[in-house]
Amino acid sequence: MSSMILGARARPFLNPLSIAVIGASADEDKIGGRPIKYLRLAGYSGPIYPINPKRDAIHGLKCYPSITAVDDDIDLAIISVPAQEVLSAVESCVAKRVSGVLIFSSGFSEVDEAGRILQERIVQLASEGGVALLGPNCAGTFNTRAGLLATFSSGILDKPPQPGSISFVSQSGAFGINMLVLAGERDLGLSMCLTSGNQADVDVAEALAYMAQDPETEVIGVCIEGIPDFDRFLAAIELARRNRKPVIVLKLGRSEVGARAVASHTASIAGSDEVFDAILRQYSVCRAHSIEELLDIAYACSLRRHPPNDKLGIITVSGGVGILTADQASAAGLDVAELPAQPQAAIKALLPFAAAGNPVDVTAQITTQPALVEPMFEHMLAGGYGSSIALFTYLPRNRVLFEKMLFYFERVASRYPGHFFVICALTDSEMRTRLESMGYAVFDDPGRAVRAIRALVDFQKAFDLPSAVREAVVMLGAKSVRRGAVYDEFQAKKLLALAGIPGLPEELVSSVDQALGAAKRIGYPLVMKIVSPEIKHKSEIGGVLLDIKDTEQVRQGYETLLRRAADAAPNAEVRGVLMARQVKGGVETILGVFRDPVIGPIVMFGLGGVLVEILKDVTFRRAPISRDEAYRMIREVKGHALLQGVRGVPAADEDALIVALVKLSIFAASQIDSIESIDVNPFVVLPAGNGAFALDALIEVRSA
Amino acid sequence: MSSMILGARARPFLNPLSIAVIGASADEDKIGGRPIKYLRLAGYSGPIYPINPKRDAIHGLKCYPSITAVDDDIDLAIISVPAQEVLSAVESCVAKRVSGVLIFSSGFSEVDEAGRILQERIVQLASEGGVALLGPNCAGTFNTRAGLLATFSSGILDKPPQPGSISFVSQSGAFGINMLVLAGERDLGLSMCLTSGNQADVDVAEALAYMAQDPETEVIGVCIEGIPDFDRFLAAIELARRNRKPVIVLKLGRSEVGARAVASHTASIAGSDEVFDAILRQYSVCRAHSIEELLDIAYACSLRRHPPNDKLGIITVSGGVGILTADQASAAGLDVAELPAQPQAAIKALLPFAAAGNPVDVTAQITTQPALVEPMFEHMLAGGYGSSIALFTYLPRNRVLFEKMLFYFERVASRYPGHFFVICALTDSEMRTRLESMGYAVFDDPGRAVRAIRALVDFQKAFDLPSAVREAVVMLGAKSVRRGAVYDEFQAKKLLALAGIPGLPEELVSSVDQALGAAKRIGYPLVMKIVSPEIKHKSEIGGVLLDIKDTEQVRQGYETLLRRAADAAPNAEVRGVLMARQVKGGVETILGVFRDPVIGPIVMFGLGGVLVEILKDVTFRRAPISRDEAYRMIREVKGHALLQGVRGVPAADEDALIVALVKLSIFAASQIDSIESIDVNPFVVLPAGNGAFALDALIEVRSA
Repeated sequence: MSSMILGARARPFLNPLSIAVIGASADEDKIGGRPIKYLRLAGYSGPIYPINPKRDAIHGLKCYPSITAVDDDIDLAIISVPAQEVLSAVESCVAKRVSGVLIFSSGFSEVDEAGRILQERIVQLASEGGVALLGPNCAGTFNTRAGLLATFSSGILDKPPQPGSISFVSQSGAFGINMLVLAGERDLGLSMCLTSGNQADVDVAEALAYMAQDPETEVIGVCIEGIPDFDRFLAAIELARRNRKPVIVLKLGRSEVGARAVASHTASIAGSDEVFDAILRQYSVCRAHSIEELLDIAYACSLRRHPPNDKLGIITVSGGVGILTADQASAAGLDVAELPAQPQAAIKALLPFAAAGNPVDVTAQITTQPALVEPMFEHMLAGGYGSSIALFTYLPRNRVLFEKMLFYFERVASRYPGHFFVICALTDSEMRTRLESMGYAVFDDPGRAVRAIRALVDFQKAFDLPSAVREAVVMLGAKSVRRGAVYDEFQAKKLLALAGIPGLPEELVSSVDQALGAAKRIGYPLVMKIVSPEIKHKSEIGGVLLDIKDTEQVRQGYETLLRRAADAAPNAEVRGVLMARQVKGGVETILGVFRDPVIGPIVMFGLGGVLVEILKDVTFRRAPISRDEAYRMIREVKGHALLQGVRGVPAADEDALIVALVKLSIFAASQIDSIESIDVNPFVVLPAGNGAFALDALIEVRSA
Repeated sequence: MSSMILGARARPFLNPLSIAVIGASADEDKIGGRPIKYLRLAGYSGPIYPINPKRDAIHGLKCYPSITAVDDDIDLAIISVPAQEVLSAVESCVAKRVSGVLIFSSGFSEVDEAGRILQERIVQLASEGGVALLGPNCAGTFNTRAGLLATFSSGILDKPPQPGSISFVSQSGAFGINMLVLAGERDLGLSMCLTSGNQADVDVAEALAYMAQDPETEVIGVCIEGIPDFDRFLAAIELARRNRKPVIVLKLGRSEVGARAVASHTASIAGSDEVFDAILRQYSVCRAHSIEELLDIAYACSLRRHPPNDKLGIITVSGGVGILTADQASAAGLDVAELPAQPQAAIKALLPFAAAGNPVDVTAQITTQPALVEPMFEHMLAGGYGSSIALFTYLPRNRVLFEKMLFYFERVASRYPGHFFVICALTDSEMRTRLESMGYAVFDDPGRAVRAIRALVDFQKAFDLPSAVREAVVMLGAKSVRRGAVYDEFQAKKLLALAGIPGLPEELVSSVDQALGAAKRIGYPLVMKIVSPEIKHKSEIGGVLLDIKDTEQVRQGYETLLRRAADAAPNAEVRGVLMARQVKGGVETILGVFRDPVIGPIVMFGLGGVLVEILKDVTFRRAPISRDEAYRMIREVKGHALLQGVRGVPAADEDALIVALVKLSIFAASQIDSIESIDVNPFVVLPAGNGAFALDALIEVRSA
């Protein structure tokens, strides 16, 4: 893969200067018979060259025996021949120095091992020839403004999408086409779409990066199963964020059942869903859970009106629908703040029967006095709401009334350009288009509008954040972890302490005399533990002694630990006894690290005890993380109130916890080639100002 | 309120034999000008009598100066006059002995105190005259088969609902009309609809009960804000369940914001939402959170095909959409079990490229071989799925193909009548109607189909349950709680023990000698606690001593407790020291009771410690409950795995816990006139076979 600007390799597939179709046919029942017809239907203005040695002309275009027989430059070659002929087709494309080859043909890694090997040969050939490759087994691409309809799917012919600001990228071809069709049904305007199929070379991330740089694209919907290069994916997401383009991801294979189906579908690795979910949060990507939700949010984004805060005002002709919408908004975490007294009074003055708190219930009265629309909005917007939903239920079916109200709607929308407006009503396509042209989003169902507003607010917050920490990380003072090494608890805590995750004073001793000396230096009460890399769960063999209070207990304890180790694991290498200061109080937490095969180094945080053991109340981030991200992690676990001081316990030293989480994440990121996992459990957080310390640690290392 | 058959009082509003309209007008801009016109439009076949002293005829019907001037019997009187004239209108209706008065007029309890008083006088008048009253401030009623359109709302005129099997009842008039309009948009067939407005007399529960007995009604959608008589509401719900009619409830005022809006809207009391949610679960009612969801589920129910289990089969033309649907189904708790090997092989034999596990991916190939539809379904249904979703995405837009496939769809539907089928595809109204007539549910979005199937499965389970325990409860051995009494811990535990919630052996002593004697009888280790009704939180003043191991500690402990009580609360009445057996181990739980002003006696269960304190991990039921219900309660709390034995702790005595919960619920139900709340905290559940015991208890009593 070359080191060009990210996204540049998707260019020939989305904005080709000229197109050849290898395997072109005049028969529309054949896959190769469709792209030329569709390109001409869509109004593609560049040259098109059918390639087929058996024909002289196709669709009135001169046909060439091979791509090398074409005199002009070819930018994009579409390959639609049986799998066994694809290799030689790609060879001819390399000889012709095309920019990209788009392969419809299937029968590769999605089918069997032989297919996978053939696919690898093709990719290598293209790569050596400097040709970008899309597919195989993909359904093609689409660009409204370029007149590009490079697909064999007849699904979108009935109602080809109109130009607009939404772009899609989908690994699954059928899914991508389905999104296009559904978007067309809803009259959503589209910019471009790419399906990546087996994504043997150009992948979802490349396409996403290209779209993030497309000036016509305002919002990008992404449907993925697996992610071949997670770093590239994150770079593309970050590019979109910097360009203030919302990204909405629908991931197939969320549940275990789903994951099984993915495996049989395109041989992708589906990482653990909780981890993926947390990573999307970390990178400010919105996750949709249905096509409907993805389209709702993309639609709201496409209107280019951005709510500046999470306060929602509701104006309604029906008290009941207003209450329901307020319920849904509160459940989504939006602030349905009450309107201040003064605008409430102004509303009451105009319409004495109105409820003016928020929801503002203007009752059906507004239908007899449409001129009230403007002052009602005006007074309500005095509440400082960044978004508002106007609920007109069945109202605008009255055409005459609708025309009257439209005049006032237009005035409201143009007076408040920094505001996101939704009208919930039953409308027809023409009414909707007119409202949308003024900047209103139109939804049937207020619950779906609320969900979209929530996403818009989150995007605005994310766009205003500084870039996530993602620089190459230098560990000051940290020692490298060696692959294949075996670290005992004492060594593990030493390594972590050098990396900035503090432990308490402790010494490793190998005689009673040494133990007594250490006890004197550390001070009572003490913890004594057996140290052996082979005994990973010390408590289970009685290998941990608490509350050691005097020299006699040190003496007895030393003997006891050695005897128990010898009884339980006679062949284990015992490296001695760990003497450590014992702390009282504090909140026990768990810090962890593991290597996800797809995503890379993951840092985990959770609260100890029943919360993690029973409720799995933990959260994740890709390492490294910033202080802000650590702060957000801590607030994501359900039991985080424990750290704020409850049950008579003082507030915990959250700052020390944040520093440890950040440093552990940096250690994880810098050492991930050697590390399999790290458990710091418990990591005790003492009351504010007293620090936080690793009481036990386990580092599992990758084999050499 | 009379003690007729529940629901009978809603009859005149939904099936009137004759109708008078008091305040009838020829002017459609007036509310009184509409019902006669609408009734005639809807084809109402009974006699209609306009009442208006100023006119001779309205809409060609003879007009009467007053209702008493009409010779014939009047079944229903619709009142549409200003609020101050309603009282005399009702008087005339009482004189005329009508069955019911339906009051459109507003200006009553929803406005102010004077309105509330006027409303009460009207209700009293109607009640004494034996006349059922609907409203005031309601939007009327509707019955497709009776040609009844007794409303002033013009909203449904564009597309009046067609006869079908869905009925609605809504407190809010505008909301009810909105539901009708949205149902009409979706071509849903309706039976009847009633809006109850201020529900000063006939309420949502009466209407629900009537609909539960209507042979044309298959499913009932309910929209409520407040419930004036919760017992009646529960009786109506139970009636629907016994008649196997699904009830779907949308409650307005779910969030705190919503609750505030309700208070200003129709002066209803909105109970705590978590409690209401649990009570709906207890009574097998489905709760919808949006109108869209309510209509989706009602639609699915109206097809009269009932899935016999929660296994879902998926057949798809797009692998990606199939995976997404499997994800959504698993998240909803449906079982997307894999297809057995034999039918998988049969599918592969027919279509080698198909993925056959479930989702069964038939690929776009099915479009060229529509005859495969039948064997594909047949082999897939060999997996024993009670429901299946067929995902055809954009397929049926091809009309010719659709006609071909319809033949096979019909064969499949008729061969499997005990199966619930969904087709997800873009369709037009005619296609949808044809599929529905075969028994298929048609959805655009598979996620919404999944949610509806989940509801159908839950309804089937609920219909097969025996009736919930709701009989009058006789307490054997229980002592009555006296209003105004003050119970200390010792007395509270005695009362609870008599009611069947066991404690451990304990004695109340008032001297050191008595304490030593009690210690001997009970045995060591002991707990000693100060007993004073004024000291409710003993631990906070050091009033609880644990691990008392010998006579010396008993002596010292006694003095310590008295001294601490005297220091902390010098004026408190100290009733002595409680000597109790101390237990080790077990799981700490919390049992509770409180009186909800709307719902009645509520029993609560939760797990002790951080789970209840930080996560509020508790659940509720209306008391009394059965053993099965107690079992379900225990499984509803997130941390319930703690009781099954984890972290080396043996499984807890769940049976003892269940018995205690049931008995506490019976005690609560029988004593709710005297009790404000009961806390049994902690209630410790020992390992299986060892019982469960109240370690502390607090009974708060209502004032005398």
